[in-house]
Amino acid sequence: MADVIRITDPADPRLDDFRDLTTADRRPDRPGGKGLVIAEGVVVVRRLLASPYPVRALLGVERRIAELDTEVDSAMPAYVTSADVMAEVVGFHLNRGVLAVAGRARPWELADLAGLKRLVVLEGVGDHENLGSLFRNVAALGFGGVVLGPGCSDPLYRRSVRVSMGHVLAVPFTTATEWPGALKYLRENDFQVLALTPRADSLPLSDVTADGKVAVLLGSEGPGLTDEAIAAADHAVRIPMSGGVDSLNIATAGAVAFYALGRGDRGAG
Amino acid sequence: MADVIRITDPADPRLDDFRDLTTADRRPDRPGGKGLVIAEGVVVVRRLLASPYPVRALLGVERRIAELDTEVDSAMPAYVTSADVMAEVVGFHLNRGVLAVAGRARPWELADLAGLKRLVVLEGVGDHENLGSLFRNVAALGFGGVVLGPGCSDPLYRRSVRVSMGHVLAVPFTTATEWPGALKYLRENDFQVLALTPRADSLPLSDVTADGKVAVLLGSEGPGLTDEAIAAADHAVRIPMSGGVDSLNIATAGAVAFYALGRGDRGAG
Repeated sequence: MADVIRITDPADPRLDDFRDLTTADRRPDRPGGKGLVIAEGVVVVRRLLASPYPVRALLGVERRIAELDTEVDSAMPAYVTSADVMAEVVGFHLNRGVLAVAGRARPWELADLAGLKRLVVLEGVGDHENLGSLFRNVAALGFGGVVLGPGCSDPLYRRSVRVSMGHVLAVPFTTATEWPGALKYLRENDFQVLALTPRADSLPLSDVTADGKVAVLLGSEGPGLTDEAIAAADHAVRIPMSGGVDSLNIATAGAVAFYALGRGDRGAG
Repeated sequence: MADVIRITDPADPRLDDFRDLTTADRRPDRPGGKGLVIAEGVVVVRRLLASPYPVRALLGVERRIAELDTEVDSAMPAYVTSADVMAEVVGFHLNRGVLAVAGRARPWELADLAGLKRLVVLEGVGDHENLGSLFRNVAALGFGGVVLGPGCSDPLYRRSVRVSMGHVLAVPFTTATEWPGALKYLRENDFQVLALTPRADSLPLSDVTADGKVAVLLGSEGPGLTDEAIAAADHAVRIPMSGGVDSLNIATAGAVAFYALGRGDRGAG
């Protein structure tokens, strides 16, 4: 049972972590801001509660807090208020009726991730929704972690957390400090690095066998992977497509590759 | 070269087909409304121009109309105006700078689609973005057409057209008049109908061979397929998942299934 605290004044300073989420320069989830992680909705708040991120407080309407009440301990403040007061605090009307806020967890290192069997490496994925969808697909299809190369956004940004359905909170990730050095490091640590690209001279995905450790390298939808990144991979691979090179969204292309490369040892699943 | 007509008055009646696109009861792309098809942005307008839909007119800023000018004939009105006038006409600021409007084409019949080798059948897919993404994935991965069962939205709705990147304009689709009779009809026409569902007693996707005609049946993300629809299929199949049954978006799950079932005869693609 949470420590339920009823609040009627939208200016109450105890709600400051939840304030003005849409105002860019005050958003608490901005890197360089307070660095907080925001979860929206019962499903995602549950995933935040189950994650390594230290949850500070919940804010919600009566009914949503009641749904979560038994899942948090008595030291956890759960601020209950009306939908209107919530809207005034966060800056928009929140359909999902509940938010939770957490601090950041200790970041993973590339060396931690190199112990996993399957990784995704991203280059230039700046779109928060694509990033969130990628994490959702990584979690669903059994890839272990994500390495963020240059040009990637913060996956803990509020919109990425929401689009990932909270799965970004369960998937280890790290930011590469050297590029494309991180790819070299993965190859030295027994990963087969496969660069997914629509280039005509790449191998069809179905021709690749992936019995050992695999890292799938994905670039952004527009410019795609840099030549440097492709050159640092073991192979360039492509999904055979009918409708032109822009036909699959990056997160969808990722899902197809994760499925195709992961089937080997999930077997009947 | 289009018939370029410069317009400065947002009330000009020649722009009526483009007017108030966000006002629900006036939206020209609503079924029951004028039944028009709206394409946004150069890429999607190009796909509309290449489609069977009869294009009536273009509206855009100078630079975007110039990009498309050589692709349309002299009978095509291309209204050139400022970004501000465009925003006033359509009701929002349009980043993509150009729109085209078309009438509806002759609808396909189920019998037309039954001549194709691979189909997708949807039940209860009401979300316009998911519907658009599904059409994009159908086009990319070589599935020939889409059958819309009960509870599906109109794929020619403006947002679906945009999210599909215009691929909805190239993929034949039809609305099933009998349900689940349409599935029975497909089976009688040599289709193997595969219902994609997270049910534990379904077959893993990798256990299914699809050498002949295949129809993949997909339901909405929340409630999933109805028992009637699953019972009318040949097999229930699932994508083995790690992260729980909500882990893949419907369009993404579709893409994985289209890839897995389509690989057979695309070969090295």
